Amino acid sequence: MLAEFDIIARYFSTPDQSSSGAGITLGPGDDCALLSPAAGTEIAMSVDTSVAEVHFPGDAPPEAIGHRALAVALSDLAAMGARPRGCLMALTLSHAEPAWLERFAHGFRELGRRMSTPLIGGDVTRGALSIAVTVVGDVPAGQALRRSGAMPGERLAVTGALGGGHGGLRIWQAGGSDLEDPLLAAYLTPTPQLDAGLALRGLASAALDVSDGLLADLGHLCHASGVGANLDPARIPLAPTLEMTLGSEGALHAALSGGDDYQLLVSVPDTAWEAAQRRCTDCDVTLTEIGRVVAEPGISGIPETMKGAGWQHFTGGGP
Amino acid sequence: MLAEFDIIARYFSTPDQSSSGAGITLGPGDDCALLSPAAGTEIAMSVDTSVAEVHFPGDAPPEAIGHRALAVALSDLAAMGARPRGCLMALTLSHAEPAWLERFAHGFRELGRRMSTPLIGGDVTRGALSIAVTVVGDVPAGQALRRSGAMPGERLAVTGALGGGHGGLRIWQAGGSDLEDPLLAAYLTPTPQLDAGLALRGLASAALDVSDGLLADLGHLCHASGVGANLDPARIPLAPTLEMTLGSEGALHAALSGGDDYQLLVSVPDTAWEAAQRRCTDCDVTLTEIGRVVAEPGISGIPETMKGAGWQHFTGGGP
Repeated sequence: MLAEFDIIARYFSTPDQSSSGAGITLGPGDDCALLSPAAGTEIAMSVDTSVAEVHFPGDAPPEAIGHRALAVALSDLAAMGARPRGCLMALTLSHAEPAWLERFAHGFRELGRRMSTPLIGGDVTRGALSIAVTVVGDVPAGQALRRSGAMPGERLAVTGALGGGHGGLRIWQAGGSDLEDPLLAAYLTPTPQLDAGLALRGLASAALDVSDGLLADLGHLCHASGVGANLDPARIPLAPTLEMTLGSEGALHAALSGGDDYQLLVSVPDTAWEAAQRRCTDCDVTLTEIGRVVAEPGISGIPETMKGAGWQHFTGGGP
Repeated sequence: MLAEFDIIARYFSTPDQSSSGAGITLGPGDDCALLSPAAGTEIAMSVDTSVAEVHFPGDAPPEAIGHRALAVALSDLAAMGARPRGCLMALTLSHAEPAWLERFAHGFRELGRRMSTPLIGGDVTRGALSIAVTVVGDVPAGQALRRSGAMPGERLAVTGALGGGHGGLRIWQAGGSDLEDPLLAAYLTPTPQLDAGLALRGLASAALDVSDGLLADLGHLCHASGVGANLDPARIPLAPTLEMTLGSEGALHAALSGGDDYQLLVSVPDTAWEAAQRRCTDCDVTLTEIGRVVAEPGISGIPETMKGAGWQHFTGGGP
């Protein structure tokens, strides 16, 4: 097996990345990476682990595995309205197969390049395939989008469309492998909504990313904010081709409980709604109202039969 | 299995920790943690993964596993001369056994308390036992101890004693389990040399921590600094009881190549040597000269028979 340093150096440290990251004063290769914070900012940090056969199929294309591991971590920065500065990767793999590593690193690096997120540190160990990615970003002090600010009467809205993650999982499980399929792409190579997070800063009163499923994540937002929600199922934007694949009821169930969508769920006061929509449109993101925040705890507007369990990863049962 | 949020909340978030971490403006429970950097500082970050049966025995006392996972990560902050601010933990485990988790969290939390390192974020997933810890610290801008500053003529020195990590591994493999044994304690519950790292800031020209073995890590320091080293094996401080356990030759081999010691290896100019020793003494750390930096590449002074492979983790072959 290649030594840890060799793997990081050979596959992940492109010179342009480690040197040009904004604020990164020392990249990989020393005991720590160093970041020079910009004045007046807070540092936002999160870690997300992707385990083979739990969060993704181990035989997925290596590029997709690399892309996805970074994307799900970046989604947490998006949900805070933070701008990414870099990431650290703890890669555990059973053997260092150069062709696999090359493709994995390509997917990881390519998303990092698009999202201005250089790899600034890493650790490679032997074991079952898993990738823990720590993302580091910054946000003007006091402006981070927390989960706890939603107020009764505000609009609940989501970026993009929902259900694609679960729809793609079903297609993969049925033997599909065409990454051009919009559902499979949504599942295997999701796009973290970083632009939308930045656009909604100062407008949304609360935000999180939809990773466990809309109902579960809305529950988290409501719990943190001490509020409830009334949803209008008919307004929930469904991923393209989802109804064709799963039928109307299956599609709605996937959108409500499927998880793995990595869109943002936000609460926006009426006074900020037009600006929020305009700013999202400016960065090519749709922002769709799906309900309202209410004072009473609990989520209403959804038929009881639709309230399945959220948090269904790769090995979880489908609806 | 308990949900991720429950595990983090129940076992790891002590109220005093998440709220009192210096500069931590938001602890666990949201999409990201937030850190307010102090003016004029750089942020230091590193990730270290501990995998059961690779880096530690899976049947070690859970408290030791928790302690050790955080200690090896903090050791990288020590090696940069950084002060810890917090950590994020990606915990992967096959099942959530409350008694085991309670003991694991106790070891992790207790070291975090002693080292002022609150857990500010976490992720719990299902899979083979492994713990990836990302540590975050700060250091006055421009004062971090890098690997690359060693100059010919400087003294090479180590904190504490070497070989204890490997000696303890051998004792564990022979069935020993008394954590009061100094070698077993050195292996299972090492102490990150954070005080020494702070003490040596501004005095050492280069530093790293001895995790892969003295010869291997000295090689990294020499490579980064573009220098060589001349060691005096007779001066290398051996862990207490190491010679008794492994014999003189085995003890020296363990100190040179055993790894897992988490002491600091530094290069110190003659002009700073007295101050370095005094400051280390002030924080109850011994600093022992073991050789000199030389201009010619390579490591001299060591018999060829002693130049075994470094980086021997749990499953690696012993000397």
